[in-house]
Amino acid sequence: MESKLKKLGFQGSEKLKTAPLKHSIKSVVKFLKENISEDDHRPAISLGLGDPSCFNCFRTTTVAEDAIVEAVRSAKFNSYAPTGGIFIARRAIAEYLSNDLPYQLSPDDVYVTVGCKHAMEVMVKVLARSEANILLPSPGYRIYETFANSHHLEFRHFDLLPEKGWEVDLDAVEAIADENTIAMVIINPGNPCGSVYSSEHLKKIAETARKLGILVIADEVYGHIVFGSKPFVPMSFFGSTAPVITLGSISKRWMVPGWRLGWLVTSDPTGLLKKCGIADSITNVLNPSPISPTFVQAAVPKILEKTTEDFFSKTIDLLRSASDFCYDKLKEIPCITCPQKAEGAMFVMVKLKVSLLDDVEDDTEFCLKLAKEESLVILPGLTVGLKNWLRITFAVEHSSLEDGLGRLKAFCQRHAKEP
Amino acid sequence: MESKLKKLGFQGSEKLKTAPLKHSIKSVVKFLKENISEDDHRPAISLGLGDPSCFNCFRTTTVAEDAIVEAVRSAKFNSYAPTGGIFIARRAIAEYLSNDLPYQLSPDDVYVTVGCKHAMEVMVKVLARSEANILLPSPGYRIYETFANSHHLEFRHFDLLPEKGWEVDLDAVEAIADENTIAMVIINPGNPCGSVYSSEHLKKIAETARKLGILVIADEVYGHIVFGSKPFVPMSFFGSTAPVITLGSISKRWMVPGWRLGWLVTSDPTGLLKKCGIADSITNVLNPSPISPTFVQAAVPKILEKTTEDFFSKTIDLLRSASDFCYDKLKEIPCITCPQKAEGAMFVMVKLKVSLLDDVEDDTEFCLKLAKEESLVILPGLTVGLKNWLRITFAVEHSSLEDGLGRLKAFCQRHAKEP
Repeated sequence: MESKLKKLGFQGSEKLKTAPLKHSIKSVVKFLKENISEDDHRPAISLGLGDPSCFNCFRTTTVAEDAIVEAVRSAKFNSYAPTGGIFIARRAIAEYLSNDLPYQLSPDDVYVTVGCKHAMEVMVKVLARSEANILLPSPGYRIYETFANSHHLEFRHFDLLPEKGWEVDLDAVEAIADENTIAMVIINPGNPCGSVYSSEHLKKIAETARKLGILVIADEVYGHIVFGSKPFVPMSFFGSTAPVITLGSISKRWMVPGWRLGWLVTSDPTGLLKKCGIADSITNVLNPSPISPTFVQAAVPKILEKTTEDFFSKTIDLLRSASDFCYDKLKEIPCITCPQKAEGAMFVMVKLKVSLLDDVEDDTEFCLKLAKEESLVILPGLTVGLKNWLRITFAVEHSSLEDGLGRLKAFCQRHAKEP
Repeated sequence: MESKLKKLGFQGSEKLKTAPLKHSIKSVVKFLKENISEDDHRPAISLGLGDPSCFNCFRTTTVAEDAIVEAVRSAKFNSYAPTGGIFIARRAIAEYLSNDLPYQLSPDDVYVTVGCKHAMEVMVKVLARSEANILLPSPGYRIYETFANSHHLEFRHFDLLPEKGWEVDLDAVEAIADENTIAMVIINPGNPCGSVYSSEHLKKIAETARKLGILVIADEVYGHIVFGSKPFVPMSFFGSTAPVITLGSISKRWMVPGWRLGWLVTSDPTGLLKKCGIADSITNVLNPSPISPTFVQAAVPKILEKTTEDFFSKTIDLLRSASDFCYDKLKEIPCITCPQKAEGAMFVMVKLKVSLLDDVEDDTEFCLKLAKEESLVILPGLTVGLKNWLRITFAVEHSSLEDGLGRLKAFCQRHAKEP
């Protein structure tokens, strides 16, 4: 049997097949954690993932916990849910998103997914056509590339511009698009950059999409997580200019990424997506696909409607002061420059001047040595598409952030080249 | 933009792409329900799906509800879970399954999935190789075909033998297997047949698999749901003869299909699956894939360890008497024959003698007219691979079963040919 399995391509660990996955954020963070020295008796610190839910100060609201408990205790939501989710969840999500829009979404526009990542995969699968291509931001959240690879959808990268607050380089978008380009992805508030797009910039994105005849896939998993001067404006505000597919989740705003409740929404007031069968295609892709537990879906109306403003503002205040603190501390480290303070999401991108360091070839080596020597995990920029940058999460409790940035500074000082 | 979308293959509803999905059990049941007449003031009855959780008599145990509530209230399980699931869930599933085995499973053998259907897709994806093929039972649960189609894995069918209690036709298995056959799927207790395999038959399956050098994928989502003379024996009992991939879930035994908590387990005491990289490949497939909510995973140890025997026996007693009642009532209907009373799962397969009926061409027309005239949904056998058979679920509350079988009889009498 062993020889037969080998013949069919099963031979030891599958290096080739897994290559793109090896660079997922999760895998890289796991790899770095495994490299932390057992001899270091300080606690390990991770500024690697956007998941602060383990810290007491970022605990979710009891409104959300109550909603789950009530749904489970009712025993009304133990059955299979229909494809796309139960009506009360779809209606609540439509209402929630419509609050920020000049038009009204319908429950039929909403598809409940197993978190936002699942919504991304569904959308990539829906668009995968032999000739089609999609445009992805660089830096960006690389799982889009993973899904595009696995569903054989061609992708092309456009740059985000650090000196312009990580706005989309719209000239680049026009330059790389062709007649087979079907969609562009924007992530706002931005992962990995912590950027927040102005209404004007979003309008320009919509106009560019209209000109090119493409959809906009708006990854708004960090929707409403903004703490700078610009408010959060959903891409779908400009849905009449170009059709928008909005991806979102309760993961970040409610600090419950482990609950796996997301959505995919056709924000399409002109009805083009329905007309072209894209709505049907979403249902077809979702039909055999995993679905969020029915009782978690049933908790959605209470979660979206009953959460009080003070929970949100507490979170935003914590993230604002963490971002400020992070920015100030990073300024003290000579080999690191931060072109843009984070104004949203949970991350900041900083540039590493490798030339100022001894024994460090690039961002990957930097992060590996940092894990080994300082028990500190930071994500190499390469993982989000930008070599010799770093993505730093500041969404951790203050003592960890202070300690972590202190270790980062000590590491950089120790490895600084003699002047 | 519309013309561009059309050019890329988006034009109205996507008939071609969706063909295999249109025949999923869910879609067929939905279609039949839509055909129920609004003029019929009797309540609609569905004997179509294996989901009795909406009936009070099949309500899950409070142990399971408590476990979820406790996990949510602890706020310890709001974070992302690692690929494959959290350790305490994997360990509890390993212990639970090892109770029935002559060897001990390790937590590393266990991968938590979003229900059993997700486990099926993962396994199909893992095995998909350009030359490989897998063997599937007919009749069977057709979602395997859907996944195999969508991941480009060739499949071949072997028959189950109604006159032998729906046992696998092992001669047929040997006849259709070739050097590229990599696995065979068995479903025990059986969907759609309600069959339960003896230990002797499972042993012969393992020996055949060994002879052919293939794995056995054992779909045991109905594990322990047995109420005839034969006990439930897991396929993995014979894991030393041939490696087994066990798929399971809390959905059926705990009556919570909407909770979406399943597992995929490498029951592989000889270590062959690890050696050949199949274990790594499972992790790679799961890495970007949806995952069960962390707090649901966290509830698993309590659910598996603390549920008392009286909950299980109450369910089994209910199903046994429902199966008996169903069998007796079906005997009264001349155009229907039931070769084998169900001894497990939630279904029975019965043969339709279309020749005895007027105005009914086949099982599909039978079920459509039944929905229209009697507001009764029963699954056409074609949906599970057997034309002119019916799959009837008896896992409903008694009054619905009695009423439903009464309507079935009335329908058959009304459509009977003059003698």
